[in-house]
Amino acid sequence: MVAPSIRVAPSAANRALGLLRTVQFTHPPNCPCHSNPNHHHHHQTPSLANHVRRHLATPIDASRQKEYAFEMAASSIRFGPGATKEVGMDFKNIGAKRVCVVTDANVSQLDAMKQVVEGLSKEGIEFTVFDKVRVEPKDHSIKEAIAFSKPYNPDAFLAVGGGSVIDTAKLMNLYTVFRDADFLDFVNAPLGKGLPITKPLKPLIAVPTTAGTGSETTGTAIFDLVSKKAKTGVAHRALKPTLGICDPINTRTMPSAVHASSGLDVLCHSLESWTAIPFNERVPRPTNPINRPAYQGANPISDIFSLHALRSTVKYLPRAVKDPDDFEAQSQMLLAATLAGIGFGNAGVHLCHGMSYPISGQNPGYKHNGYAVDHPIIPHGVSVAVTAPAVFRFTAASNPDRHLAAAEAFGVDISNVKRESAGEVLGEAIAEFLIKLGDQPRGLKALGFKSSDVDGLIEGTLPQKRVLMLAPNLSEELTAEKDELRQLFEASLEY
Amino acid sequence: MVAPSIRVAPSAANRALGLLRTVQFTHPPNCPCHSNPNHHHHHQTPSLANHVRRHLATPIDASRQKEYAFEMAASSIRFGPGATKEVGMDFKNIGAKRVCVVTDANVSQLDAMKQVVEGLSKEGIEFTVFDKVRVEPKDHSIKEAIAFSKPYNPDAFLAVGGGSVIDTAKLMNLYTVFRDADFLDFVNAPLGKGLPITKPLKPLIAVPTTAGTGSETTGTAIFDLVSKKAKTGVAHRALKPTLGICDPINTRTMPSAVHASSGLDVLCHSLESWTAIPFNERVPRPTNPINRPAYQGANPISDIFSLHALRSTVKYLPRAVKDPDDFEAQSQMLLAATLAGIGFGNAGVHLCHGMSYPISGQNPGYKHNGYAVDHPIIPHGVSVAVTAPAVFRFTAASNPDRHLAAAEAFGVDISNVKRESAGEVLGEAIAEFLIKLGDQPRGLKALGFKSSDVDGLIEGTLPQKRVLMLAPNLSEELTAEKDELRQLFEASLEY
Repeated sequence: MVAPSIRVAPSAANRALGLLRTVQFTHPPNCPCHSNPNHHHHHQTPSLANHVRRHLATPIDASRQKEYAFEMAASSIRFGPGATKEVGMDFKNIGAKRVCVVTDANVSQLDAMKQVVEGLSKEGIEFTVFDKVRVEPKDHSIKEAIAFSKPYNPDAFLAVGGGSVIDTAKLMNLYTVFRDADFLDFVNAPLGKGLPITKPLKPLIAVPTTAGTGSETTGTAIFDLVSKKAKTGVAHRALKPTLGICDPINTRTMPSAVHASSGLDVLCHSLESWTAIPFNERVPRPTNPINRPAYQGANPISDIFSLHALRSTVKYLPRAVKDPDDFEAQSQMLLAATLAGIGFGNAGVHLCHGMSYPISGQNPGYKHNGYAVDHPIIPHGVSVAVTAPAVFRFTAASNPDRHLAAAEAFGVDISNVKRESAGEVLGEAIAEFLIKLGDQPRGLKALGFKSSDVDGLIEGTLPQKRVLMLAPNLSEELTAEKDELRQLFEASLEY
Repeated sequence: MVAPSIRVAPSAANRALGLLRTVQFTHPPNCPCHSNPNHHHHHQTPSLANHVRRHLATPIDASRQKEYAFEMAASSIRFGPGATKEVGMDFKNIGAKRVCVVTDANVSQLDAMKQVVEGLSKEGIEFTVFDKVRVEPKDHSIKEAIAFSKPYNPDAFLAVGGGSVIDTAKLMNLYTVFRDADFLDFVNAPLGKGLPITKPLKPLIAVPTTAGTGSETTGTAIFDLVSKKAKTGVAHRALKPTLGICDPINTRTMPSAVHASSGLDVLCHSLESWTAIPFNERVPRPTNPINRPAYQGANPISDIFSLHALRSTVKYLPRAVKDPDDFEAQSQMLLAATLAGIGFGNAGVHLCHGMSYPISGQNPGYKHNGYAVDHPIIPHGVSVAVTAPAVFRFTAASNPDRHLAAAEAFGVDISNVKRESAGEVLGEAIAEFLIKLGDQPRGLKALGFKSSDVDGLIEGTLPQKRVLMLAPNLSEELTAEKDELRQLFEASLEY
């Protein structure tokens, strides 16, 4: 069992510490000793005397103050087979009169779009369709989309598609409302300015057609900033859709290979958010709550979602991949994707995601089985999962209990496993899961990468500060961090 | 293990049924056989032939069509010791300029209010305080509060207090925005008109000072409609606060008896929402999603919250009650109250709550230990818990697996328990928990009720349609329903 990390264990010393902390929170400025990153008071039981000594001795450095609160925000979610057709009434209910429908060329041919168009038409709602979303969006494809929505100036948005569509719609909404903003204003620092979003956006309803990104519940939108050769995006709670309509009929059209790779994204969302550094170890504590990031670290509410989604994925993903008629497994995977979305959307992801961006971006020419495209492609879910066995072997030392709980979710009997073996056991369980799932590359070599590519992959990972800062066990100091990333990429060459 | 009730088990017959259902949802009007309340297709495995036969033979009765979707909505939640003082910045961030602060005479003296006032003042936000909320609000106390906020016409509300305060603030917000509405317009049918809320309300931030109602996350507001001698209220997702700030420092001031009774409310929120009829057995299916009730029945997302909150309450409530210095247990109970709030706020409660209203309202003169008031009082949590042993003995037959899972949450080893004993075992576990908690009446007799009072209690329960409709195993036919309520009240006289 892994206890949620709420403060103060019931020992006498900690009770005294709790009282001190109460005083601390009541009378700012706060006691700096709780903010020392080398003082893990949740893992140790410091004596009150030591505490007071430290209290007297340590100077206050506000930039090192640890977080003391977390915030959970999620879109409303409606779940049910056939719920797509309700969307016309939803827009009517909120008084929307001009709706910008966002999709891509592929999804625009599917039944989900037909249901949406019928629903809007039936309620007499004016709408226009933008169907040019690029899968794995780039800044120029996002800008093209914004150039479409700005002059139309809708009073609401509707996204029908996978993560690329929903993310693009979020940014169309953002930059149509903030019409005069520079594109980089809201983009995550350091590539962009990372400004907070200070006024409400237009209503956005998202209808996912894949079971993967969970974008229908999150305030995150990801794209390639081509000039910097980097994946980045905008992340703010204000960006999240008003409502996600999760209709399992809409994911029935996914080919088996797409079920698999989207499902591996769900797997890593769950595992990474479950093992991310705890929210109360994150520095610095924001001085204004609007600056508390959505990627805030693991917390007692995200934990519930992440662990639940992990268990569901282990149970249902193999069935959804193997049997195209297993509607129960497909429905459960859509639900798991959304739950994992709430989990990582309020906690964050770390190494698998941070390392996946250069893996997909520096693809030496691999084309994944079952993807009917005319160019090389490492699907996002494949690129996150390929490092997972190595990543969780590495992170386990930060919190063996959590890693053992994750191994247990994979069906491992952990009753006799030592805590120091947590990483080995979880890494093994993940590798076995991937192999049994079938059609997965057993490491970066199978994707065509060589040892000599590792330097480039490391350089491509380093700019992912927003996720790397949540990576447990990773050094902050650059040389050490590079060494650790090298170790992870090398260990991921083959599993 | 209890599987979330998503459609279609993986048998061949059900797979065919799943395909039929897909067609059904794609081409309305829907197959009526899924809507027949006597056809429990999740518990049986009907043959495809039977299905088609029924399909051909049964006439469509729209009012009996079962629900096919559920919707999850929750306030954003910020959790952390000391987070109260951030509220001034929150209002500044949303651009609020005139805030109506709602509290009661008792809470207005506490540190939580001091933090709030300092936070607002520091940001230069104009505010006015209404501190006359009545504990257990009545329609006239609500109307008095509305008469205060209407002329002030704030652009945001802030509630600081327990459930009564937060519920009152929700209704002040509602009727200040819908200035010309009649008070009964939005009140739950049949006592009120139950109109849907068709435009957004003003931002409301809720700062709970008790760990019980979970009102900071729900769209429900409860009060006594004096002329009808009935508890009723308004329930709509639009009513939910924008943000709940859960600061465990604010619940430290609760006396032990208040910890206990608020915690018992959490216990029953969890147990009732976990065992409520499943959303897809509810009739009728709404024709517009705005009419999908928040009290929609148990569903795969509410289940996660309800079961988690139940486990937390069993673990931490006894500690929070016994040791006023156990800040960890108190913090966990505040979190559990919020999580249970998300659970029941998206599923509903049933018999314990429905029967509690006449128990509190028809109090023969009982004054609960530890409540410093000058009049008789059966605290809400005490009045819901007193029938719990009998209620869950009665409801178990509807879903023995869920009742066994609940018993397991109380620490019972269920590995050798027969399904037909689920009710007995859970009822026993609840009774034992209440007895060990201490200072709880062992039945209605201990509250001063006699057998001759049962008729009045039944009559007081019958108007609670909104919760009774979610009660598993309860008859719809009036005479049978009365008999069952009599059986429940009589079994609750002593435990």
